[in-house]
Amino acid sequence: MSTSIDPRRRLADLRSELTRQGLSGFIAPHADEHQSEYLPPSAERLAWLTGFTGSAGTAIVLADEAAIFVDGRYTLQVGNEVDSALFTPKHLVETPPSEWLKSHARPNDRIGYDPWLMTIANVRKLETACKDAGAELVSVERNPIDAIWSDQPDPPMGAVTLQSDELAGEAANAKLEGLREALGEANADATVVGLADAIAWTFNLRGSDIAHNPVALAWAILRTSGRPTLFIDGRKLTNAVRVALAEQADIEAPEALGDSLAALGRDGARVLLETASSAAAISAAITDAGGTVVEGADPTALPKARKNPAEITGSRRAHVRDGAAMVRFLAWLDANVEEEAIDEIAAAEKLAAFRAETAAADGSELIDLSFDTISGAGPNGAIVHYRVSPETSRLLEAGSLYLVDSGAQYRDGTTDITRTIPIGKPDAEMRDRFTRVLRGMIAVATARFPRGTNGIQLDVLARQALWDAGLDYDHGTGHGVGSFLSVHEGPANLSKRGTVALEPGMILSDEPGYYKTGAYGIRVENLVLVKPPENMPGGDRPMLGFETLTHCPIDRRLIDPELLSAAEITWIDEYHAGLLETLGHLLDDAERAWLKAATKPLGR
Amino acid sequence: MSTSIDPRRRLADLRSELTRQGLSGFIAPHADEHQSEYLPPSAERLAWLTGFTGSAGTAIVLADEAAIFVDGRYTLQVGNEVDSALFTPKHLVETPPSEWLKSHARPNDRIGYDPWLMTIANVRKLETACKDAGAELVSVERNPIDAIWSDQPDPPMGAVTLQSDELAGEAANAKLEGLREALGEANADATVVGLADAIAWTFNLRGSDIAHNPVALAWAILRTSGRPTLFIDGRKLTNAVRVALAEQADIEAPEALGDSLAALGRDGARVLLETASSAAAISAAITDAGGTVVEGADPTALPKARKNPAEITGSRRAHVRDGAAMVRFLAWLDANVEEEAIDEIAAAEKLAAFRAETAAADGSELIDLSFDTISGAGPNGAIVHYRVSPETSRLLEAGSLYLVDSGAQYRDGTTDITRTIPIGKPDAEMRDRFTRVLRGMIAVATARFPRGTNGIQLDVLARQALWDAGLDYDHGTGHGVGSFLSVHEGPANLSKRGTVALEPGMILSDEPGYYKTGAYGIRVENLVLVKPPENMPGGDRPMLGFETLTHCPIDRRLIDPELLSAAEITWIDEYHAGLLETLGHLLDDAERAWLKAATKPLGR
Repeated sequence: MSTSIDPRRRLADLRSELTRQGLSGFIAPHADEHQSEYLPPSAERLAWLTGFTGSAGTAIVLADEAAIFVDGRYTLQVGNEVDSALFTPKHLVETPPSEWLKSHARPNDRIGYDPWLMTIANVRKLETACKDAGAELVSVERNPIDAIWSDQPDPPMGAVTLQSDELAGEAANAKLEGLREALGEANADATVVGLADAIAWTFNLRGSDIAHNPVALAWAILRTSGRPTLFIDGRKLTNAVRVALAEQADIEAPEALGDSLAALGRDGARVLLETASSAAAISAAITDAGGTVVEGADPTALPKARKNPAEITGSRRAHVRDGAAMVRFLAWLDANVEEEAIDEIAAAEKLAAFRAETAAADGSELIDLSFDTISGAGPNGAIVHYRVSPETSRLLEAGSLYLVDSGAQYRDGTTDITRTIPIGKPDAEMRDRFTRVLRGMIAVATARFPRGTNGIQLDVLARQALWDAGLDYDHGTGHGVGSFLSVHEGPANLSKRGTVALEPGMILSDEPGYYKTGAYGIRVENLVLVKPPENMPGGDRPMLGFETLTHCPIDRRLIDPELLSAAEITWIDEYHAGLLETLGHLLDDAERAWLKAATKPLGR
Repeated sequence: MSTSIDPRRRLADLRSELTRQGLSGFIAPHADEHQSEYLPPSAERLAWLTGFTGSAGTAIVLADEAAIFVDGRYTLQVGNEVDSALFTPKHLVETPPSEWLKSHARPNDRIGYDPWLMTIANVRKLETACKDAGAELVSVERNPIDAIWSDQPDPPMGAVTLQSDELAGEAANAKLEGLREALGEANADATVVGLADAIAWTFNLRGSDIAHNPVALAWAILRTSGRPTLFIDGRKLTNAVRVALAEQADIEAPEALGDSLAALGRDGARVLLETASSAAAISAAITDAGGTVVEGADPTALPKARKNPAEITGSRRAHVRDGAAMVRFLAWLDANVEEEAIDEIAAAEKLAAFRAETAAADGSELIDLSFDTISGAGPNGAIVHYRVSPETSRLLEAGSLYLVDSGAQYRDGTTDITRTIPIGKPDAEMRDRFTRVLRGMIAVATARFPRGTNGIQLDVLARQALWDAGLDYDHGTGHGVGSFLSVHEGPANLSKRGTVALEPGMILSDEPGYYKTGAYGIRVENLVLVKPPENMPGGDRPMLGFETLTHCPIDRRLIDPELLSAAEITWIDEYHAGLLETLGHLLDDAERAWLKAATKPLGR
């Protein structure tokens, strides 16, 4: 993000544009037209306007004042990046935008919003807030930031490829048939899909519009009877891909979406939309033309999250390759960190190089990292969403901890792993904290639970050993992971907000942590797969459980066996015992020797 | 409940009355005008109509058919008590009344309901269901069952007493002042209190209208400014009590409530009501007269649940007395069960006698049991809500387990305890199951957790040892307990539905179980008090935790120490070690000797 241009000037330009459009204010969220988690450069309007580059936030600009709302992760960052004389920083949770609007909007204010960048649920909340203030929330025709952003990048035009039926495990026509049934059960005539990973899953396509997410920005209308329509820019499609997709759906330009939504409305269609993930513009286009919105869950979310046998096989294969790359990296780090000056950037680059090399040696390909590697030495490890830059990159120094959270996109699966490594000799507190975090990770990995159990219930298991010592961490324990798709995938997760029941085939991360501000960060993360219910010997009820997908040693130098139960020691030893056999074929002799030493039984 | 009268005749009479009132159907819930958990005989309309005597259920009578809806606890009982030719039994959860109505009500049906017996939330659901069926939900002026129930008992007229400020810990005027502030914060002018325990807590009064619950049926209007009004039948009040209450509130007859609600409405008042616990009649009376209902949480619920120091001291005292009575009972049982034929009824009566005696010896009084004792031998122990009767009472026989769940109402506190006792030698499976249940109870009792933690999160800790073996139980882990009030008190609980955060001063039960149908039941229950957040040595964050209030040995013959961790063994041994000193002064020599033997360290 360039900082050479005066943000004061941009804010003044925006206010002039608002006046021109007859508006007294505007709401600018960190969002794109597809409700993506990561945005293409063309949608980085919040960053362009305010300078804030975090992954979540909203600005509200009124005639005489403006505010920017970010969550606890970004309190420091917003202070560094944004001029608080222009935008007053606010805590997103303590003062949500709707609360702030309620007390800062004035009677008869016309507050604009771009209905493509807000969900139905967002708009409802803001409408109430404006009404309480006597103001009006107004949907804009053209985003006023786009009107003044003269060098706004073009939307991405990444090439689309097809995910083979063999890797996808289910042909697109079979998925579409299942979705048709789901729509019928919801008593709906159609649904509109805007989330890029939902499009990718449904049509077995993959794209390259967004960094780290192999998706193509597109929309689709799925119908209970009749062919679906896929709205995608033709420049993203080769002829072969277009022909294949055209077997499943009518292909239209994105510009045709509005007319098709209006047509659905005119036909009086009942259209299923999830209020938390559907753009308000979609709902408005349908109801304005006479259609009905049926509110309900996104019908693609659960089938996408429940991986089929081919996707599970692919993920297992990807995790072997990825684990070998991690082992090579850890062996390299151990061998060189004492003599060589290694900083966070060099370490992250080396790890990416091992991933690319190992994938090639395995006859696969590192298509992308699955997110920007979090490579945090010493105090930087305590910044939960740390992103290394040349300005912040620290050396990995003796007496500190190094936290590396990284992942890869391979054609057969998405990975995500965190390891914490002591540089030199860790102190007793570090080992105590690490062992408690590890106990939490093991408690989730070994949990047995009945059908219907959700992430709120399991999240607590990861925290118990920390809570017992007056410690905790301020993030969820786990998120869903896609199959060569988003590394953060809904609808299930392991957290205080995890109300969705876990089902066989779901892949989740299991990643408790502990962070000591200004000193060090600890996190241990494996991916786990929900196994089908199993009858237990002598038990009454079948129980679900997890299979650990990630293969990589957990640093023994940070484990205090005195804090572990016999069962926990057995789990670690058995986990370690399998690694040489699983990964050995992708390692050289020195790496195999390192792995053998790193996975010795703990003893006590 | 008399069964000599023909239920067919009653159903026919009801249908005639419905026709007379211009109705095609009627909904008869198990409920009274105050949304009480336990009903006075005058409100046992469901039992009178159908014969069903369970504590939860609903009947719907239509012109040609009728159904009765009960939950899983009562599936067997409804089969025994209700003629299925008259009322088709339905599972309340699988086929809720609203779902059934949707498919069984016919277009233009007028389905009646008594708005005093249904909450605002109930009515909303049923209104939608009727609308979907093209029928109309109609609020009745007079309950049609009352119209045909010629020998309906009069409403209870139990005497009211005052709870001293010393025991209550806070004077009624201070409580009323706090509630006034809460109403102001909710931007409301008033609230209407209908729950009898909320009335009792607010005005520091206790009553005797309902078995086991020391409450008086009454209503109150609390106002942000101005005196409250208490609507209570004058026959329940002595002059002294009336004078004391009149210092806090205007006293009116219950019949005056309707006019006062209408007056609130005419004044345009904003009235705070909790939709899940307020009678629909109250909301309708206010809005029909022009007032506004502000939906929100019952403002008495949290202050009532957070016990103050005087209430905590009282509860601790009550639990010493109650624990001594339990010890005397268990010692008696051990000494006599081999020679004497003891059945479930005899055991329950003996336990009640020990409670009365021990209370008197302690200078207190057993005012009531806090619920009907669950006294279940062998297979009867597996019936979770078993209520012993002469027809079902079994002998306590060698080789079986005996489960006794009981509690008392003392002036200074309410108790609730469950113990499971082996008669003769328990087998290995019983010991395994018991030990797993006990581990769950200990896991909750010893949990440390940060502010904001709720019952969903803690419930799982009680189940882990069972889940690990493919076992579970189909009830919550714990409920709130009142201070000389209801043994089931909201708003917090430990269960899958426990969304309310635990706060210091709350008293909850901790009672996991295991049930083998047709064989035996196991439950271990202690009451626990939420302690204030405490700084942990070396920790970052203060953590809440529990103090165990219940003092009574846990049967060592059922514990398999091989299944326990060292920490669990320590907890049991320390819990046992304190009992002789705590309870000894209320025991005789033989009982003390028994207690000493029963609380020997476990060893391993």
